[in-house]
Amino acid sequence: MEIFERKFKESMVSKVPLLNRITHFIVRRKGKQMRPMFVFLVAKMVSKGNFTERTYRGASIIELIHTATLVHDDVVDDSNRRRGFFSLNALWKNKIAVLVGDYLLSKGLLLSIDHDDFDILKLISIAVKEMSEGELLQIEKARKLDITEDVYFEIIRQKTATLIAACCGIGAASVNASDEDIATMRKFGELIGIAFQIKDDLFDYTDAQIGKPTGIDIKEQKMTLPLIYTLNHCSKKEKNWLINSIKNHNRDKKRVKEVIDFVKKSGGIEYTISNMKDYQTKALSLLQNYPDSPYKSSLLTMVNYVIERKI
Amino acid sequence: MEIFERKFKESMVSKVPLLNRITHFIVRRKGKQMRPMFVFLVAKMVSKGNFTERTYRGASIIELIHTATLVHDDVVDDSNRRRGFFSLNALWKNKIAVLVGDYLLSKGLLLSIDHDDFDILKLISIAVKEMSEGELLQIEKARKLDITEDVYFEIIRQKTATLIAACCGIGAASVNASDEDIATMRKFGELIGIAFQIKDDLFDYTDAQIGKPTGIDIKEQKMTLPLIYTLNHCSKKEKNWLINSIKNHNRDKKRVKEVIDFVKKSGGIEYTISNMKDYQTKALSLLQNYPDSPYKSSLLTMVNYVIERKI
Repeated sequence: MEIFERKFKESMVSKVPLLNRITHFIVRRKGKQMRPMFVFLVAKMVSKGNFTERTYRGASIIELIHTATLVHDDVVDDSNRRRGFFSLNALWKNKIAVLVGDYLLSKGLLLSIDHDDFDILKLISIAVKEMSEGELLQIEKARKLDITEDVYFEIIRQKTATLIAACCGIGAASVNASDEDIATMRKFGELIGIAFQIKDDLFDYTDAQIGKPTGIDIKEQKMTLPLIYTLNHCSKKEKNWLINSIKNHNRDKKRVKEVIDFVKKSGGIEYTISNMKDYQTKALSLLQNYPDSPYKSSLLTMVNYVIERKI
Repeated sequence: MEIFERKFKESMVSKVPLLNRITHFIVRRKGKQMRPMFVFLVAKMVSKGNFTERTYRGASIIELIHTATLVHDDVVDDSNRRRGFFSLNALWKNKIAVLVGDYLLSKGLLLSIDHDDFDILKLISIAVKEMSEGELLQIEKARKLDITEDVYFEIIRQKTATLIAACCGIGAASVNASDEDIATMRKFGELIGIAFQIKDDLFDYTDAQIGKPTGIDIKEQKMTLPLIYTLNHCSKKEKNWLINSIKNHNRDKKRVKEVIDFVKKSGGIEYTISNMKDYQTKALSLLQNYPDSPYKSSLLTMVNYVIERKI
């Protein structure tokens, strides 16, 4: 990861001093680096440890694109904090955040173009397109109280899972895996990505995530699986109370707490956890044909982390 | 152009209904379409009229990327109007504008990736990177009163000329021109693009552009060639007066008018026009080796339009 971090920093260098000051700032507030980890672990498992310069490059491309979307999210969500530092947005304003995001995005793409890495380029470009579509689908549908589970899963597949799918696909492509292996790893990443987002959405109903309050999604009228399930599995009277709570009382902390308690009592959490574990199981079944190795073990540890994490 | 417009519309289609409503809205407020015109005219001149499906695709890619930057500009500049309609930003908010820009950008790139058009992809990706760098360079340097002509030209080369360079390079690449032809056309587009931006900056000092007030750049303390020249070619006393006017009195309409008059009197406009014409001449010299044809004549008409336009 140290070698990767050095290469990642190098990949952002620009002739424009302002850009270098900002990217220096971005590197300091680095996150969990789950995405590059998936690139490396898949590459290692598929190649039995023989990953290449292309793997480092693939991980840098993924991290450039992921960072670009975080920077753009700062504009999008107008959030003041991310990863524990002040957001780029609060410090440098929207104007610069849009441009820096565009710069990082094009640097990521050029990194593959400059090395004629067209397999990797295709995997990442599909992810970029689907992420923006997923976010827009979320804006359009996620606040509708009659949202179906199918639409919920389509949103999280596009906005979150598609990039983790690209990580795993790129990890495999970077070690010249077969088309079949690349497709299998892409699917593996997609399933894990969906589980990852379900876990993220669960945090809003449980106290597990450190330092993050619950009930934010309800306050913002954002429908996620625990609530969607509950709305479709309660009496008409309870449903009316829920809809009224979400539409008209979502700023009332006590009422939001009551909604959370009702979701818990109705089995919404268990149902969601069971769904998440189904995705995990499906993902793990795709690893069956790969022989046991220290690399595969590390990948399994990552998969468990996605499900068990407290943050 | 009719066939192109149909293909361009098709290239934006998404599964997300919200996106289709917005892109429908974008297509309605279409601009001068100067960029696709350059793609077609260069392709026609180089191929002697035999342009191909790739030319249409190249033009669509350019227009997708250009539209993406316009949509992102709406966030960037917080401007309320563009192309005579309300901006996307004012109607749909920043959140959506960033995502729609990202979507159009990735659709443009995927259009070339899906057809294995890697020459075109490389030309356009460089342009995307340079445009964001150019805008950031402008933010960093263009309000400094000691900005040099070199920095001014680097800003306009990156933020404006690089995309017109890509148009002309892609026009040539789309008809399987030689690497030399592609490089020549790229350079031709860059020179014309610089002339185009110089003309744009001149509008702020002349009354030529219909419906646009003068003095906006001075009000925003944005240094362009007429003013940079004047600051470097006047007495120390006049320079102090100019600096004081720009720094401390740039909201005073009468004072801004006095600055414009001083720039005119000092030869700043003539110098800028002469520079613009030099770029035009250099651009035209690159066309000398291409035989006369109706296609070349149309391209020359476009070049004159860039310099002579009133809007």
